[in-house]
Amino acid sequence: MVVAEPVEEGNGERPAAFVQSLERGLAVIRAFDGDHPQLTLSDVARRTGLTRAAARRFLHTLVELGYVRSDGRLFSLRPRVLELGYAYLSGLSLPEVAQPHMEQLVAQVGESCSISVLDGDDIVYVARVSTKRIMTVAISVGTRFPAYATSMGRVLLAAQPREVRAAYLRTVVLKPLTPFTITDPAHLAVTLDSVALQGFALLDQELEEGLRSIAVPIHDRDGAVVAAMNISASARRSTPSAIRADLLPPLQAAAREIELDLRRGPV
Amino acid sequence: MVVAEPVEEGNGERPAAFVQSLERGLAVIRAFDGDHPQLTLSDVARRTGLTRAAARRFLHTLVELGYVRSDGRLFSLRPRVLELGYAYLSGLSLPEVAQPHMEQLVAQVGESCSISVLDGDDIVYVARVSTKRIMTVAISVGTRFPAYATSMGRVLLAAQPREVRAAYLRTVVLKPLTPFTITDPAHLAVTLDSVALQGFALLDQELEEGLRSIAVPIHDRDGAVVAAMNISASARRSTPSAIRADLLPPLQAAAREIELDLRRGPV
Repeated sequence: MVVAEPVEEGNGERPAAFVQSLERGLAVIRAFDGDHPQLTLSDVARRTGLTRAAARRFLHTLVELGYVRSDGRLFSLRPRVLELGYAYLSGLSLPEVAQPHMEQLVAQVGESCSISVLDGDDIVYVARVSTKRIMTVAISVGTRFPAYATSMGRVLLAAQPREVRAAYLRTVVLKPLTPFTITDPAHLAVTLDSVALQGFALLDQELEEGLRSIAVPIHDRDGAVVAAMNISASARRSTPSAIRADLLPPLQAAAREIELDLRRGPV
Repeated sequence: MVVAEPVEEGNGERPAAFVQSLERGLAVIRAFDGDHPQLTLSDVARRTGLTRAAARRFLHTLVELGYVRSDGRLFSLRPRVLELGYAYLSGLSLPEVAQPHMEQLVAQVGESCSISVLDGDDIVYVARVSTKRIMTVAISVGTRFPAYATSMGRVLLAAQPREVRAAYLRTVVLKPLTPFTITDPAHLAVTLDSVALQGFALLDQELEEGLRSIAVPIHDRDGAVVAAMNISASARRSTPSAIRADLLPPLQAAAREIELDLRRGPV
């Protein structure tokens, strides 16, 4: 039997015809994570704020669709959920185009390389080549960090239209992720101006102590900044000036190669 | 405004309280893929079988939730959908545990290595270390193949309880993916028996011409087969007997190391 969703009042901010049961179903999928790979019905209800009856309906639907398995008491995700994220990745030509250039760069400099895009106030990794080779990718792709505390995020913020950047600086909460994180919006604004001017961002332990990184923009064929690429390095191995002297030129060269390939590409 | 879902009759096979709007919303996400990264409202309606009005409601909901972006006419997925698949991957300890052993194996034998689990009649890649290093992972993890035509699938099918295997053999459609694919259920049954006996599966160009692979099971601490690991090699570089002689021993050794680590692990 297919049941009707209850009619509920919107909060006035949502567009017409918001399908609340889709929101709730996706929340049930996201209730599972690395620390909670198996959940009971009560766990799911608690983690999503749904009633037990509602949580049961969504779990049973996801079981029926092959996204969730159940042993009667415990529920867990099935690999089919990978297809949802895969739909996004396979639609991006950038990771595929960038791959050989990132590999070459990592082989050359011996440090890890990533590419991110801006999504709201966060950056999201869409490609990563680690010095430890492979597999970290599957884990890293999809990872989010607040844009303000990352070198790639600063490059992407610096490329935003002036009014978008101003709106961001008015609303963002700048948390001190380390003692070095810039937490004053006026200071961040000046920093973004200089990133825009110099064409790269160098971050010194603002996201994580002991980690430095340098990022440059990647432009599409129309000259718009579509992504940022960085190299990260241990603070023990490299001073900021060494990073700029040794890592920036090969990073910029790799970005130029990727941009040339994007221009050549079919999309 | 939050609208009610229409009440519809179930088909009698679905459990009580199937939430059809969740099924439809997930179908809208899956309407996007590598060949169709941008879709109009009409495209989405056509690819999902929804009415335009229904497709519009689901797209607007996904835009509101941050999973889809729209320029007014064209819709595309946003990186937030990666979090859905990430919820599954981060709940698996196996890929993380297996990573260093797979890397070492690939460095030793110079061929690519993968780990899959069984999901219905398909295998799904959950980890891959490629000889071309990195990035292929992001693309390969989540990839599905029919179990019968893969070495990992045969290992996983051979480990199923007898009645599960019999039910599979009664219902599966064995398509000749190459001229070498086993398409007779009785032949496949005998092959699975011998895989179970010998503890590995060697496949010779049954999935793709020019590709050979060999797979072994990975057992959890209770002795249950939870995954399969394989090495694939070009048919031009290795004969079946060379694959068995040269690749099987290191593959089995790596599987044993992974099993030992799984036994040691916290989960």
